Amino acid sequence: MFQSAAKTLSVATTTAATLTRGTSFSIRRYCQKTPATLRVSEAVSGAKLGANVKVQGWVRSVRPQKANLFLHVNDGSSLQSLQVVASSELDDPLLTLGSAVEVTGTLRKSPRQRQPFELEADRIHVVGDCDPVDFPFKIKERHSLEYIRQFPHLRCRTNAFSSLLRIRSEATTAVHSYFKENGFVQIHTPVITSNDCEGAGELFQVEPSSPNNEEGEKFFSVPAFLTVSGQLHLEVMSGAFSRVYTFGPTFRAENSQSRRHLAEFYMVEAEVSFTQSLEDLTKVMEDMFRSATEHVLAHCAEDVDLFHKHVTPGHRDTVDAMLKNRFPVLTYSEAIDILNQSSQKFAFPTDWGCDLQTEHEKHLVKHCGNIPVFVTDYPYDLKPFYARDNLDHPEHTAAAVDLLVPGVGELCGGSLREERLDLLKARLGEAGLEDTYSWYLDLRRFGSVPHGGFGMGFERFLQCILGVDNIKDVIAFPRFSHSCPL
Amino acid sequence: MFQSAAKTLSVATTTAATLTRGTSFSIRRYCQKTPATLRVSEAVSGAKLGANVKVQGWVRSVRPQKANLFLHVNDGSSLQSLQVVASSELDDPLLTLGSAVEVTGTLRKSPRQRQPFELEADRIHVVGDCDPVDFPFKIKERHSLEYIRQFPHLRCRTNAFSSLLRIRSEATTAVHSYFKENGFVQIHTPVITSNDCEGAGELFQVEPSSPNNEEGEKFFSVPAFLTVSGQLHLEVMSGAFSRVYTFGPTFRAENSQSRRHLAEFYMVEAEVSFTQSLEDLTKVMEDMFRSATEHVLAHCAEDVDLFHKHVTPGHRDTVDAMLKNRFPVLTYSEAIDILNQSSQKFAFPTDWGCDLQTEHEKHLVKHCGNIPVFVTDYPYDLKPFYARDNLDHPEHTAAAVDLLVPGVGELCGGSLREERLDLLKARLGEAGLEDTYSWYLDLRRFGSVPHGGFGMGFERFLQCILGVDNIKDVIAFPRFSHSCPL
Repeated sequence: MFQSAAKTLSVATTTAATLTRGTSFSIRRYCQKTPATLRVSEAVSGAKLGANVKVQGWVRSVRPQKANLFLHVNDGSSLQSLQVVASSELDDPLLTLGSAVEVTGTLRKSPRQRQPFELEADRIHVVGDCDPVDFPFKIKERHSLEYIRQFPHLRCRTNAFSSLLRIRSEATTAVHSYFKENGFVQIHTPVITSNDCEGAGELFQVEPSSPNNEEGEKFFSVPAFLTVSGQLHLEVMSGAFSRVYTFGPTFRAENSQSRRHLAEFYMVEAEVSFTQSLEDLTKVMEDMFRSATEHVLAHCAEDVDLFHKHVTPGHRDTVDAMLKNRFPVLTYSEAIDILNQSSQKFAFPTDWGCDLQTEHEKHLVKHCGNIPVFVTDYPYDLKPFYARDNLDHPEHTAAAVDLLVPGVGELCGGSLREERLDLLKARLGEAGLEDTYSWYLDLRRFGSVPHGGFGMGFERFLQCILGVDNIKDVIAFPRFSHSCPL
Repeated sequence: MFQSAAKTLSVATTTAATLTRGTSFSIRRYCQKTPATLRVSEAVSGAKLGANVKVQGWVRSVRPQKANLFLHVNDGSSLQSLQVVASSELDDPLLTLGSAVEVTGTLRKSPRQRQPFELEADRIHVVGDCDPVDFPFKIKERHSLEYIRQFPHLRCRTNAFSSLLRIRSEATTAVHSYFKENGFVQIHTPVITSNDCEGAGELFQVEPSSPNNEEGEKFFSVPAFLTVSGQLHLEVMSGAFSRVYTFGPTFRAENSQSRRHLAEFYMVEAEVSFTQSLEDLTKVMEDMFRSATEHVLAHCAEDVDLFHKHVTPGHRDTVDAMLKNRFPVLTYSEAIDILNQSSQKFAFPTDWGCDLQTEHEKHLVKHCGNIPVFVTDYPYDLKPFYARDNLDHPEHTAAAVDLLVPGVGELCGGSLREERLDLLKARLGEAGLEDTYSWYLDLRRFGSVPHGGFGMGFERFLQCILGVDNIKDVIAFPRFSHSCPL
């Protein structure tokens, strides 16, 4: 029986194009039992040409014509949707934008220009309907990123945001690949921590929603926070692994709804042991940036094009320029000179010793030809306790480095870490933190090595390569002050 | 000058073996300027044989003999340390277990049996010393996992825990590779969420440590929690992508210090659209388990061997048996029959309708030959609101599935999701949750499709393949009640 069905199928496959809809019905019944299920990405590239196949997805457009019905069906596997051509008899009022369908038919070369392959449908089944009045996206309308942001549970159904999510997924792969290929061990640094890495406020505290039995007792016995950086935990690992990295969520309780801030965002952080100078870090930062960017451009060409053509026209040139040139290196002191010699009026002071603000960073990037630029050796007093003292009195700088990029400003921040026990102890002592960080001092007591690392804001990286202005548009579920839907 | 130094180097390289330490000094000075830095993993596999090289790492053993000094140096790039052979003249009292060193010399074939290559040192520089009295690990002692767990900032410096961390890193890669190769898009589901996926208590709540200006006002306007699962957010994506997954930290405020529980642990979760039956899920679960396990066994053979030989002897046979057989499938009802027919006395009841406890799960695994086993179609009332109703009165089960594995019990849990708007609405209505989950109901209003997914506890996966009994020993920084150091 199976044999005979298979034979019939093979007849159907080879003759489908010449059969009329009416006469092929009995043969199609056999076909429907066995069609291979294809993903849209496979179908649009012509896999199983001529075969009876099934494709499942969501309707992105419907064009009824006199004799035929044209649909575009997408299942998230690619930006391109599959064109489905069906007899008007198969039309159904439930075929609307957003409805879920299962289409069986024959995949064939398209006589139309815009896509090389299309599915000639012999059956269209509406799996789940979608009321076009209530559905917030409308057929043939191009919705702005700002508009779709209002629908956090539905915006993945638009072309732009599904492209963004594929790019983000691929960029994640790219980051992991870079570190793996370069011998870094991935560490899952903890989200919940009892230390406050930057010594800053703006921490989220964590306690059970229903308190423990014992009155007033903390779940972890000590105050516990959401991590602002995995650096100190990576430094633990730097005493046994000469190359480690972490890639995960970090948190700031910043009371801001600006287009630059999120309460939860992703950081890529790396730590390298046996460093000799900041160059050991800038090399990794630049290599990772190039490698990840090139990977994304190569593996998500269509999706990136959507942004570069329709969302942020002209940005591709900026990206190409970034990749063409080596990143220049300025010291902080040189940067201050450049700012002071500029004709631009800045809102914030540019005296030696002042921190660089976004306006300064953007100016420095422009000054260097709108490409990424490293700024090194910041004033010692601007940097946290762990930054390595350059011992360069009277200027007194720390071996810290930022990578500034077009459109974004600071993309990465890093430093050599103070590996000398006496210096570190003195600085922690001044701040009254010697006991709190006794475990961190231990790392210098036992086999301390010169080391350093950096962190890169992953959302900022995506903004930088796509040209997207608002950080909320490059993350699946943005969390910020007064906003945590779902 | 550079030319001439290079020439001298090439002489030094070819004649180093025949030169005595005394006479080669002036040549060595040139060599020291240019030796290639090798990682230990490269050196132990004989890269740059015969060349003058530099290796940096931490001392894992010191054996001074009459004429020679033997060191083992490790930098975390492999379990194997590099054997360093030096003249006794190069001995230094600071060369102790845990001290950091930089060794230059010539890499050559070893006359000794235990390793094929060794480094003949002509210079050993102690970069960072390590007081052998204060350092908690002692030379030639094998420390138990329990002992090293007391030193969360130092335990990565032991062989066992550095192996674990390499395995964990590689297993992470394996999971990502599996999903990538199978067309899944990775989604960063949020850590901070306003929904309580399982409807359970045991949530951590999140608020800024220094409150906002406005008295009593919440940062996010609504109560915000640490996620217990990314499932509902993945389901959002299942309306646009037919295959998605997430891999990240999840949280339970469980007041337990048992060897089975953590407050922060990692979950791998996947969601598949257009499912036809539970088989669409069990296939992915089984494939992922096999693929990730085989990847780890192939890419971390030495590290896994350390566990299978020294930590959990005999466990390799269990792992091999798991991979040899297809995983059997039992319905919950069949499982209950097996438990009731067993001669074993259970602490918990085994009546139809009772949840399976760890003792039951372990019995079922044994019953099936100590291999992973799926249990499907649990009583409807045991499962959360999103589980798909099998509509099989009078038994009344839900299309849910657990994967039980040797030693661990439940490794994965999953279900088809209720995609039918009317059924879902009724169930949420009964629980008074219709408003809270109106966004979730929207997913069924607009292009709903049959779909399902599962989650796998990543630490449990590592325990399962390594045979490690305590979950705290398979995560870098375990967090549990009353414990959050660092």
